[in-house]
Amino acid sequence: MRVAIGPSSFAEQNDAPLRALEAAGLEVIPNPFKRRLTEDEIIAHLEGIDGLIAGLEPLNRRVLDGAKNLKAVARVGIGIANVDLEAAGEFGVKVSNTPDGPIGAVAEMTIGALLCLARRIPEMNSALHDQRWEKKIGTGLSGATALVIGYGRIGRRVAELLRAFGCRIVASDPFLKGEAADDGTPLVSLASGLADADVITIHASGERAILGEVELAGVKKGAILLNSARGGLVDEPALIAALESGRLGGAWLDAFAEEPYRGKLIGMDRVLMTPHAGTYTLQCRLSMESAAVENLLRDLGITSRNS
Amino acid sequence: MRVAIGPSSFAEQNDAPLRALEAAGLEVIPNPFKRRLTEDEIIAHLEGIDGLIAGLEPLNRRVLDGAKNLKAVARVGIGIANVDLEAAGEFGVKVSNTPDGPIGAVAEMTIGALLCLARRIPEMNSALHDQRWEKKIGTGLSGATALVIGYGRIGRRVAELLRAFGCRIVASDPFLKGEAADDGTPLVSLASGLADADVITIHASGERAILGEVELAGVKKGAILLNSARGGLVDEPALIAALESGRLGGAWLDAFAEEPYRGKLIGMDRVLMTPHAGTYTLQCRLSMESAAVENLLRDLGITSRNS
Repeated sequence: MRVAIGPSSFAEQNDAPLRALEAAGLEVIPNPFKRRLTEDEIIAHLEGIDGLIAGLEPLNRRVLDGAKNLKAVARVGIGIANVDLEAAGEFGVKVSNTPDGPIGAVAEMTIGALLCLARRIPEMNSALHDQRWEKKIGTGLSGATALVIGYGRIGRRVAELLRAFGCRIVASDPFLKGEAADDGTPLVSLASGLADADVITIHASGERAILGEVELAGVKKGAILLNSARGGLVDEPALIAALESGRLGGAWLDAFAEEPYRGKLIGMDRVLMTPHAGTYTLQCRLSMESAAVENLLRDLGITSRNS
Repeated sequence: MRVAIGPSSFAEQNDAPLRALEAAGLEVIPNPFKRRLTEDEIIAHLEGIDGLIAGLEPLNRRVLDGAKNLKAVARVGIGIANVDLEAAGEFGVKVSNTPDGPIGAVAEMTIGALLCLARRIPEMNSALHDQRWEKKIGTGLSGATALVIGYGRIGRRVAELLRAFGCRIVASDPFLKGEAADDGTPLVSLASGLADADVITIHASGERAILGEVELAGVKKGAILLNSARGGLVDEPALIAALESGRLGGAWLDAFAEEPYRGKLIGMDRVLMTPHAGTYTLQCRLSMESAAVENLLRDLGITSRNS
């Protein structure tokens, strides 16, 4: 059987997951472009392929319909909004993800990005490396209110870390009902959370904008926005306007509607940007890639050597 | 009575501490150079002065001997290694500090700096602002071992935060005896701590180098060193050698033997530098400056309006 690789960096740091596929007797076809594949590219890539180790390439009905041999898609990561699950079901393609792997890495990166913005660390570091000793005043986290949008696995871990810093947490999640989540975190409407929060951090799934012009106009002045989830969840023109007006004090973006990102945010101050690297730790990549390989072997009906 | 100001940024963000001095009927003489004063400059600055709101300017025997009217020195911050306490005692100058103010701000900045280095955030941010989409692999904190050198107020708070990230903590402190600190943290020798730790963070006082050539040669390969305490605690040529050889994976420096810093570290990769900004939050500056004003008024025998 033949397996294709979607993610541009699969097994780049540690080749154990690649060796596990080969050890199971599979022929492995790497990503030919070393970047996210377009619809036409993934169609070509899936010709004669039985299983796909998937990234965020579009796996819509047209793509899945064209991949006549495809039996299993194993996504390295949590989100599977790029996969048409209905079409996959119809065509008999099993779809899996690795929900636990990214939690720690994304949560840690989120706290790091928040502290970068709150304390202006990259800005002072660049100045000092450029021979300028420029102290910038920042803000403390203790006593700040943080709104977690999307209170799932990663959102809860971020909340736990923020609590250690002395933040008060509120959460907004359309899938949770009642006054509080099961861990006691108050559940609030998006509008009231945005109005109160010094820090807004997005850990939701989906592709539709949660924060547009109306929502961003309602944030507390000077709030910091963190988005490590999906680029499409924040409307970019509205974000740019909120930063330009000073309504938002700063923003961190690790996810973009189109990647590699080439838009207007590149030229803006108070925007911290990372290239979708929330899960880029040695520990997390290995854990997610190994889990995806196990899932793929299982869904292809192959018993791996470890099990 | 006349009060002189030492710290270059006193009351810059919030003038309440300055107003409290004036409300007490004191004449306030600002820092004339808006930077740390030299020995000769502070001697001139203290002529005819009764009380000093102090930064890190040298307050040695010669300076204190020359300041014939001086009755009180109120340091904004914790460390008072810049004050000759014996001479102050002889000349009847009362010395105070503000030990609690900096804890949260310095601890938060330390975690931010660690995440910057572990996840290469400033590096990826600069690249992306320069149109380069360059993912860099980082390391996770969960499961890492952190050595806290100097287990006082700030060291303990940093340890508490690191524990929330899943780090294992060991501490080295010449003032603590036994197998564990009162909070259960294992106490280790400096040498064994350095050999084990993925993260080394300094929260000690004093001016003599704790980490020199011998100590840095004994660190675990790739360890990250954090120093927000005092520049002199790490021998700079030894630090440069450890970074150049790759023995140290990265270093954050917020304190330098001479400030503003102009040395060789400026040109080095894997060095994150901030301009002694560990306490630069709005909340922390106000809290420390207010506490120093209260201390100064008390030591000058003036009852403040609030008390």
